[in-house]
Amino acid sequence: MINIEALFKISYGLYLIGSGNKESGNGYVSNTVFQVSADPPKIATACSKNNFTCEMIKKSGVFSVSVLHQDTSNETIVNFGYKSGRDINKFPASEIIYSSDGTPIVLNDSIAWFSCKVEQSVDAGSHIIFIGEVIESELLDDSKEPMTYAYYRQTRKGRAPKNAPTYVDRSKLTEAKIAAPAKKYRCVVCGYVYDDSVEKIKFADLPSDWVCPVCGSDKSDFVEF
Amino acid sequence: MINIEALFKISYGLYLIGSGNKESGNGYVSNTVFQVSADPPKIATACSKNNFTCEMIKKSGVFSVSVLHQDTSNETIVNFGYKSGRDINKFPASEIIYSSDGTPIVLNDSIAWFSCKVEQSVDAGSHIIFIGEVIESELLDDSKEPMTYAYYRQTRKGRAPKNAPTYVDRSKLTEAKIAAPAKKYRCVVCGYVYDDSVEKIKFADLPSDWVCPVCGSDKSDFVEF
Repeated sequence: MINIEALFKISYGLYLIGSGNKESGNGYVSNTVFQVSADPPKIATACSKNNFTCEMIKKSGVFSVSVLHQDTSNETIVNFGYKSGRDINKFPASEIIYSSDGTPIVLNDSIAWFSCKVEQSVDAGSHIIFIGEVIESELLDDSKEPMTYAYYRQTRKGRAPKNAPTYVDRSKLTEAKIAAPAKKYRCVVCGYVYDDSVEKIKFADLPSDWVCPVCGSDKSDFVEF
Repeated sequence: MINIEALFKISYGLYLIGSGNKESGNGYVSNTVFQVSADPPKIATACSKNNFTCEMIKKSGVFSVSVLHQDTSNETIVNFGYKSGRDINKFPASEIIYSSDGTPIVLNDSIAWFSCKVEQSVDAGSHIIFIGEVIESELLDDSKEPMTYAYYRQTRKGRAPKNAPTYVDRSKLTEAKIAAPAKKYRCVVCGYVYDDSVEKIKFADLPSDWVCPVCGSDKSDFVEF
């Protein structure tokens, strides 16, 4: 038997993955970044096949990883985590630099970055694991803590977007959870879910000036589902 | 230019990886575990080719992942993190169960576990990335926090063993760090390093009853290097 809730105990950070070139680039928020080799340093990331950036990494053969800090703004999370590069160009309003080989690096709320050349691409089903050799890297700010996914979930009440490898279809949670007679409300802007079964205050009892803790949308932007 | 210190900003948890079968098994401490696919859930781990367990995973085609909690004992870290299954059998003194297909699962200080069947093995240089489909999983204790690698490093002063993908040859750190006129002392039992340049008290000034914070060895078990 598989208990999906065990997956919540795996620890992650939170990162911006960039790709493309100087003419055209995109970036998105990822939690699956990890070093897989020490010398030379290599980094792997799991990218949903549905992600616009996935196509860019395949075409360009390069990606960058920027490490987000704990006080990352909602704007950065919403812009890079809940919007698609197919719909908007995220770069004009962002802080972008380019590595020596032209790989875009997003610096918004970042404390370190890596520019990587794809060495291997592994099809893992819903996701592709890109393994890249680190070509350049920089530590920008040693005074701030990296944002962990646990911190994001606990403090910011964030949830994984649907394309994340750690996304959980909550209808598949154990029966005990499903049996809870609670209502759920989703922010139509960013996808954040307010779940009466895990909150102290029922959604209906929240004040009318309450806003989405992730993207700042109004209470009226939530729909029950 | 590569700044190795940027690698310290990637976030990880801490896990016990088990493999083998009911007759013969081994386990070791790893920080590189991550979910790479949502449905069906798949987990990847990067394992040093030098690890005894690496051979076992290759032969058996299975591995388990147990999630360590924040109060994990030094014994578990030392036994599974700094000793090799080539030298000792770690299992007799450990808490071991077996999944339905006979995969050993180490339960010492664990709050959740996964039993995985290897689907792909990817050669990443010094390490092999094993991608496994989760066959069984269990949440054992929802009240304890998972141990993060950052917590381990900051609170327990732990360092990566030499076979970890996140091991850093400290002779390669930036010149500023190298130039610090400080002495370093290594615990001959577990490899823990006491570095005068980052500690408030010089090693020489520590009381004689001070012990290694990782494995509890005496101060006299440290050698300057």
